Amino acid sequence: MKRVRLVHGNGGRFSRELTEQYILPHFNNTLLAPLHDGAQFEVSKGRMAFTTDSYVVQPAFFPGGNIGKLAVCGTVNDLAMNGAVPQYISCGLILEEGLPFDTLDTILATMQDMAERANVQIVTGDTKVVQQGAVDGIYINTAGIGYIPEGVMISTDRVKAGMDIILSGSVGDHAISVMGTRFGLSLSDSIRTDCAPLNHMVQAVLQEVGSNVALLRDPTRGGVGTVLKEIADQAQVGISVFEEAIVVHEEVQGVCDILGYDPLYLANEGKALFVVNPEVTDTVLSILHSFEEGKEATLIGKTLAHNTGKVGLQTALGGVRLLDMLGEDQVPRIC
Amino acid sequence: MKRVRLVHGNGGRFSRELTEQYILPHFNNTLLAPLHDGAQFEVSKGRMAFTTDSYVVQPAFFPGGNIGKLAVCGTVNDLAMNGAVPQYISCGLILEEGLPFDTLDTILATMQDMAERANVQIVTGDTKVVQQGAVDGIYINTAGIGYIPEGVMISTDRVKAGMDIILSGSVGDHAISVMGTRFGLSLSDSIRTDCAPLNHMVQAVLQEVGSNVALLRDPTRGGVGTVLKEIADQAQVGISVFEEAIVVHEEVQGVCDILGYDPLYLANEGKALFVVNPEVTDTVLSILHSFEEGKEATLIGKTLAHNTGKVGLQTALGGVRLLDMLGEDQVPRIC
Repeated sequence: MKRVRLVHGNGGRFSRELTEQYILPHFNNTLLAPLHDGAQFEVSKGRMAFTTDSYVVQPAFFPGGNIGKLAVCGTVNDLAMNGAVPQYISCGLILEEGLPFDTLDTILATMQDMAERANVQIVTGDTKVVQQGAVDGIYINTAGIGYIPEGVMISTDRVKAGMDIILSGSVGDHAISVMGTRFGLSLSDSIRTDCAPLNHMVQAVLQEVGSNVALLRDPTRGGVGTVLKEIADQAQVGISVFEEAIVVHEEVQGVCDILGYDPLYLANEGKALFVVNPEVTDTVLSILHSFEEGKEATLIGKTLAHNTGKVGLQTALGGVRLLDMLGEDQVPRIC
Repeated sequence: MKRVRLVHGNGGRFSRELTEQYILPHFNNTLLAPLHDGAQFEVSKGRMAFTTDSYVVQPAFFPGGNIGKLAVCGTVNDLAMNGAVPQYISCGLILEEGLPFDTLDTILATMQDMAERANVQIVTGDTKVVQQGAVDGIYINTAGIGYIPEGVMISTDRVKAGMDIILSGSVGDHAISVMGTRFGLSLSDSIRTDCAPLNHMVQAVLQEVGSNVALLRDPTRGGVGTVLKEIADQAQVGISVFEEAIVVHEEVQGVCDILGYDPLYLANEGKALFVVNPEVTDTVLSILHSFEEGKEATLIGKTLAHNTGKVGLQTALGGVRLLDMLGEDQVPRIC
């Protein structure tokens, strides 16, 4: 089995071989092809968004995805959460000496698949190789840029009392799929990461009712609970959430019950929160329901003029539980 | 001593504390401040450049710099090599559990210093924490974007026979400073990394004679030898290089002689190669000499219509040695 060696990161002949034989066949496009120290392209006057994330998920493969899927979808989704149409993605690989090229190949193929699905191009990159033990397997950083269409203004400043909060689907699937693999649990085949590019779905909403969408957030690390608390803090509103409206798949809830996880604090990689003016809530829900990624979307809460900075969960039993940010870790290295 | 814990990467309260108490005090700017999943800003119509690099240098501190200095200067310089004016930088941190916050603080302070020197803003970022042993200390990824002024067109396609090749200064200083620290050699105090942002110097050249500059490359990993060979291959020209014109500091040459390194294949982090029309060579040299980073700039070679794809080094003894790309590693994890 052919494996990555330290010399594949030295900037010389072997680096070139790695790039030409393993990376370019996947990512080939006219902007990447010149293999200069960066990509050059034309932009139009307007607003742009720029974001980055590093991915260190352990293990690198799990039901429904791998680190490469996360790396593209995560950055695509961060751009989408800025209201942007994602355009260009970078790919920074840190490889452990000894990584099988077959493994790398599968991950890069997945990245290209996701890039095509999200309609973005991977236009620039960098590869470092570190000795065995200096990293466990593969880490990936992606950064991304995209343009923000006119009329879209996504900002915490625009969140006011009296708005609706919509969640695009179930919570906890990603975290449980990764933890199940990590701990070698035999889980139901139906537990799979929700990792997916959300940009087309989000753009469909913004094209229809863009000016009525105040804020978009994807509840990744920290989960829905943490993100709602951040919104309440930053926008200085109260938030009321309806526990019964939050979808948790039965198998996921089962694992949470056994392991003691709260699904509201588990990472998701294919979900979005929309804070919108209530007059567009039905429209947003109906657009979301027309997408596979949004078919389980629900109205989960409202922003309030009182109890600023607080998030109250209206429980199924009729009580209220205050949601804080995630404290001590439930699930490390989930993305 | 306060140290980074796994929970500082979980996306919850401790992540927020890390960001607010340790990162924002250094990088504070109006684009980063909203702490959304990315930065939003206005751009003008025109061409832009986008680039990324991960930094895994070992050790993280060495004479004249640290990993944070590399991370900002490296990406600034990659943008400069595209002819771009660097504007915005991202910062993706991968931290090992147990890293002292004091160490992180010093690295972030250096990043901000370099960002100010290069006149760029660090506008978005991400922090992951992995358990002890899953990474050795700290890795940093930066991506960057910048605009390319009108009239500037940096591309291998524009390299033709009969052009001059200018190198902005000495070679090997960075690699030897890192290797000296790694191996605990007691080297002369004068051996320090050359790491520096080159964008102001490069822009000064481009503003004066931009249309006459065909290509810019920074000879980092792989060194001057590898980059020249890449240029010869990609542009389909021959290259003749004058060994006597290449500056190697005496102390660096001394270490190379002892360790068996060829300075032409050692990484530099503050040097640029300019491929220019010969009528502007004197102007370019005189601009470079007016900058501290370019005071030792020399004309080191010429492109030829014959011997395409070959780089011939005219040695001090009157012979010719063919330069290939770096093969087996001299110096791993140098940036």
